[in-house]
Amino acid sequence: MSVLTTHATTAPATVDLGPAAALSCRECGERSPLSPDFACPSCFGPLEIAYDLPAGDPEALRARIESGPQSIWRYAPLLPVPATVAEQPNLNPGCTPLVRADRLAAELGVTGELYIKDDSANPTHSFKDRVVACAVEAARAFGFTTLSCSSTGNLAGAVGAAAARAGLRSCVFIPEGLEQGKVVMAAIYGGQVVAIEGTYDDVNRFCSELIGDPVGEGWGFVNVNLRPYYAEGSKTLAFEICERLGWRIPDQLVVPIASGSQLTKIDKGLKELIATGLVEDRPYRIFGAQAEGCSPVSQAFRAGHDVVRPVKPDTIAKSLAIGNPADGPYVLDIARRTGGAVEDVTDGQILDAIGLLARTEGVFAETAGGVTLGVARKLIENGVLDPSLTTVVLNTGDGLKTLEAVAPTAGPTATIRPNLESFRKAGLA
Amino acid sequence: MSVLTTHATTAPATVDLGPAAALSCRECGERSPLSPDFACPSCFGPLEIAYDLPAGDPEALRARIESGPQSIWRYAPLLPVPATVAEQPNLNPGCTPLVRADRLAAELGVTGELYIKDDSANPTHSFKDRVVACAVEAARAFGFTTLSCSSTGNLAGAVGAAAARAGLRSCVFIPEGLEQGKVVMAAIYGGQVVAIEGTYDDVNRFCSELIGDPVGEGWGFVNVNLRPYYAEGSKTLAFEICERLGWRIPDQLVVPIASGSQLTKIDKGLKELIATGLVEDRPYRIFGAQAEGCSPVSQAFRAGHDVVRPVKPDTIAKSLAIGNPADGPYVLDIARRTGGAVEDVTDGQILDAIGLLARTEGVFAETAGGVTLGVARKLIENGVLDPSLTTVVLNTGDGLKTLEAVAPTAGPTATIRPNLESFRKAGLA
Repeated sequence: MSVLTTHATTAPATVDLGPAAALSCRECGERSPLSPDFACPSCFGPLEIAYDLPAGDPEALRARIESGPQSIWRYAPLLPVPATVAEQPNLNPGCTPLVRADRLAAELGVTGELYIKDDSANPTHSFKDRVVACAVEAARAFGFTTLSCSSTGNLAGAVGAAAARAGLRSCVFIPEGLEQGKVVMAAIYGGQVVAIEGTYDDVNRFCSELIGDPVGEGWGFVNVNLRPYYAEGSKTLAFEICERLGWRIPDQLVVPIASGSQLTKIDKGLKELIATGLVEDRPYRIFGAQAEGCSPVSQAFRAGHDVVRPVKPDTIAKSLAIGNPADGPYVLDIARRTGGAVEDVTDGQILDAIGLLARTEGVFAETAGGVTLGVARKLIENGVLDPSLTTVVLNTGDGLKTLEAVAPTAGPTATIRPNLESFRKAGLA
Repeated sequence: MSVLTTHATTAPATVDLGPAAALSCRECGERSPLSPDFACPSCFGPLEIAYDLPAGDPEALRARIESGPQSIWRYAPLLPVPATVAEQPNLNPGCTPLVRADRLAAELGVTGELYIKDDSANPTHSFKDRVVACAVEAARAFGFTTLSCSSTGNLAGAVGAAAARAGLRSCVFIPEGLEQGKVVMAAIYGGQVVAIEGTYDDVNRFCSELIGDPVGEGWGFVNVNLRPYYAEGSKTLAFEICERLGWRIPDQLVVPIASGSQLTKIDKGLKELIATGLVEDRPYRIFGAQAEGCSPVSQAFRAGHDVVRPVKPDTIAKSLAIGNPADGPYVLDIARRTGGAVEDVTDGQILDAIGLLARTEGVFAETAGGVTLGVARKLIENGVLDPSLTTVVLNTGDGLKTLEAVAPTAGPTATIRPNLESFRKAGLA
């Protein structure tokens, strides 16, 4: 039974990716069989996964999920993965904490429930483990032997680790000049790490070139030719948030924007939860967050544009430094349709927000987490975000990977000799 | 009903720390009421917690645990914490992955089941979150307002974060010269971080001095005056390992030694699981792991001594760099009693083991994890650890916090311009 299918079912796929039924064009809606394609054969629009989702018995589905593993695989009935996915060697990401942030709420003047979805708890400490885990299943299904990606850093580490666990080769591409933690984490798993002289957008273009070349034979680029499968992993953020809230959609979500894919898939995930009857259909608002130094989507939002003009990034939030975000127009559409907004903050506001989150809730966020919290704060101050409602702010990465950003402001209070006299002299007593 | 009590029950405690009944001296066995004391009033021996443990119905206890939260608080009936502990704001550590390491096993020639207990998944990415979470409950019970510690780095971050979440002040003490990640992580949560000119052992001595001074009034030093409560948190490693194995004790455990406390409490935890009937009573062997540059316990083990002669640490495994380990003699006793051993590895072997674990299982361990895996490998090669049995190796921290150790060997494979020609010239095609 299918609840989201609007077209006739396509020919049965030769691969077992669970409830995934076909690829579907986001522009023209045309369906094609499951394959490692990412552009519509008719109109070149981006492809996404269409499902035969379980329908008719939400109680049974809810019970099945709740008795599942403590990882994203509990949502296998809603993902493009085989039912036996948890038995394969993989990193089992997900089920990260939804932190009730009462002390932070008090500082921000939030009277409703405020939560931090803390994805630094994933195996390589970013939300990328979710999407890569889904891409690995597609890579296995399509017989790829090398896992690859273009990355602003977090993805490279996630791909390297996932490939190691799965026994695949890996070769990842990053722009030069990334934070040391991200470079080391990309390289430590033993795969190849290629630094590119240029920006992330240059890296991305080069990867598309590689896919068209015989060199790329047998290579699954998780965020290029496996992108439709990969992107679905972000839905699990929506699933986990709603499940932890007692199968309830929060009123407001603040989500970071790099390519924009995560935000669009969180929206897709919420719609699938409603379609399957797992949650009640109620209004929600999605807010997108960018760094001022790379804010093409928020600029377009403010200007009332439907298209996004590419920019050259210059921000400490390197994991969000995508100047030409592929899903920008879809993000604009979702923010407007749900009554949300897209906003940006300065590097200084990002650092302030990292410090605020750490000292109120003991969560050490990556710069991207500083962006979402900084934007949430700004939207509250501007009266755009309603402080009396239930709000979830995403932290998608780990402060340990962007040490360079905060190190100048986070050293010892004092250095003393080990005696009481030195302690007193330093004004610590 | 009490199963572990050998003395008459002491006067009822005025604090509610769940099943914790009294402090008990590890040397003379004398009991005293629950208090922030750490040395026996009679013989100055170290104190530990004695319990009125639930007895008689292991099935009911097992069911209660299994229906509990996904954190160490599922084991509240076996810890010195109030039954309502999960309702207080805290970091909710634990329930970290027990990774089935088949690819690693194949490389090591292990034919039995091999697991990595990966405690880098804790909130501040080390096992210290477990012990600090227990110490916070004791601090609350005894009315302390400042949380403090002497630390080799991981503990400082764990205390800072836990204090922030709980709304307590914090002031932590570290030796100067720690890895940047550990210093930043200690400071980011907004508490005071005091660097001491000296080694960890100097830091530790100074903290004992502070406790005796009026300056330390109202200060709970998690690993000094709250040590009996704090140390109990390590038992949860034993609890989680056995529960994940289907309530079964593994044949062999490889545990790092810093102060030695963790190893002794894992042994205590296993004994309590047996005493409460949660697991079957069967033999197990505990192996202790040190870095050659700080190996006072393994030296004593090899020499057949019962006492440990202090050393001056010199190793990349800074989180294990305790030259005068308080629990050294107890570690020797446990290793000998269970048929285990204590062994050490060089800094080079530590780095090799970190790389091996990363490329086979996608787990990026701290130097301490390189120590345990390196020692496991050495013990297998020497025929001391049986490769046909079920073995659990602990990784107690995160590679991101000891970047300095691996950075020289973990950079990009190549740096190229974004075109196929550069790719081919670099020999990557």
